[in-house]
Amino acid sequence: MAQRYIRVQSLEGRIYYGILQLSLEVLLLDAPPWLQGQPTEESLTPDEYQILAPCAPSKIVAVGKNYVEHAAEMGSSVPKEPLLFLKPPSAVIATATEIKYPQQSRRVDYEGELALVIGDRTSDCTPEQAQKKIWGYTIANDITARDLQRQDSQWTRAKGFDTFCPLGPWIVREINPSAQLQTFLNDNPQPVQSASIEEMVYSPSVLVSYISQVMTLLPGDVVLTGTPPGVGVLNAGDRIRVEIEGIGRLENTVILRYANENSESTIQNL
Amino acid sequence: MAQRYIRVQSLEGRIYYGILQLSLEVLLLDAPPWLQGQPTEESLTPDEYQILAPCAPSKIVAVGKNYVEHAAEMGSSVPKEPLLFLKPPSAVIATATEIKYPQQSRRVDYEGELALVIGDRTSDCTPEQAQKKIWGYTIANDITARDLQRQDSQWTRAKGFDTFCPLGPWIVREINPSAQLQTFLNDNPQPVQSASIEEMVYSPSVLVSYISQVMTLLPGDVVLTGTPPGVGVLNAGDRIRVEIEGIGRLENTVILRYANENSESTIQNL
Repeated sequence: MAQRYIRVQSLEGRIYYGILQLSLEVLLLDAPPWLQGQPTEESLTPDEYQILAPCAPSKIVAVGKNYVEHAAEMGSSVPKEPLLFLKPPSAVIATATEIKYPQQSRRVDYEGELALVIGDRTSDCTPEQAQKKIWGYTIANDITARDLQRQDSQWTRAKGFDTFCPLGPWIVREINPSAQLQTFLNDNPQPVQSASIEEMVYSPSVLVSYISQVMTLLPGDVVLTGTPPGVGVLNAGDRIRVEIEGIGRLENTVILRYANENSESTIQNL
Repeated sequence: MAQRYIRVQSLEGRIYYGILQLSLEVLLLDAPPWLQGQPTEESLTPDEYQILAPCAPSKIVAVGKNYVEHAAEMGSSVPKEPLLFLKPPSAVIATATEIKYPQQSRRVDYEGELALVIGDRTSDCTPEQAQKKIWGYTIANDITARDLQRQDSQWTRAKGFDTFCPLGPWIVREINPSAQLQTFLNDNPQPVQSASIEEMVYSPSVLVSYISQVMTLLPGDVVLTGTPPGVGVLNAGDRIRVEIEGIGRLENTVILRYANENSESTIQNL
């Protein structure tokens, strides 16, 4: 099995990068692995840590309509160049935590995706150079309030709610270029999404190159590579699990998000 | 004169928050002022520091079409709710540094704006609560590749290039609600933008409240409040200066950005 790079919080609240052992102990590193973190002599047993998202990106650059059939199901075609958007770092959550369904939306969708983790400062790279800047691969769920996406011209609100970027469970260094991505909803044994990542229109190295011509990517930054067809609705109480062959499973449940009881809707106050 | 909160880099490359004195010495703080940074006994003389953007935001949330006349000049009307978008932190530059004109664009515009600096973790706030979360005010220039903004459905590329978010020169705690914003191009004594910030459609506290219902703002995060009418074109060699009464002047020059000589355009490689 490939080495699994993980980020955890100890019972004392300290945050560590580490390597997940088969025993589920985490061997602690002294820095993020893409910043040459080395193994220490410490490890944490499964009851001594909580799993976090595997990195803490300064930005999350995502790509829309990067699978032909997903573009088609959205009533659209594939863009002539990669279509970039940003998700805020405040949206990131770990596996086994809760997606909060916001009261502003009546339709929230899952979108399973391959995520790239950048290992190096990346600016103005060719695809060949960009490939070397991809430190590893993890899984993301690009949660989207579909009604607000259609209503707002910009996708920032629809895709930017707190908890709308499940990421993890860990990072692997290599991936089979034709690995399968499958998304499962609740106990349904049939996947709701099932595709090979090689069906992407723009490959990981082309995406990172393209983004790097616009903005400098930093170590730990994340690129979401788009979702295959089969996106669909989430409801409170649902469990959604994205699996990518060779990485693992990212699983989250959905609960309702309530505003603080002190708080009234902004719009009522306008 | 109001206290001016500044961020600087020393000759040794260390980064400090500080208070700018009338002598232009910087009295160093031991932490960001919104994290209760206290004055130390150290200061730097003007030849010992370089001015940086006054904060290092984890995210920059910006608002489109927040002045009626600017919406009109863009051929649009004011949105029914604040229109949110994100600029990546990698776009931030300080005053007196260079905006790099990217080769992908043939039209780059200035957009002078009032920027809010968040002092506290901010989630699900009313406008009244939100007002207390605004630690201070600075100036931003929301540089925009107008041709790419029109071409791409999302504004991330057009507004996300490195150097496309000049911010500064410093932060003040209070601002006159009817302060004038003026933008000057080169040696033209007539401002190209001139408006009172009270002409905003959604006020600072309403914007922060609205954003906080979507995503948690963190200390040091920045909200750009939209640009008044008068946006226009920048060319290589131009000098652009945004002034807000009671804050100061944010001035930047424009140079051409060249890709690394090793690098070819991504699109040629698709």
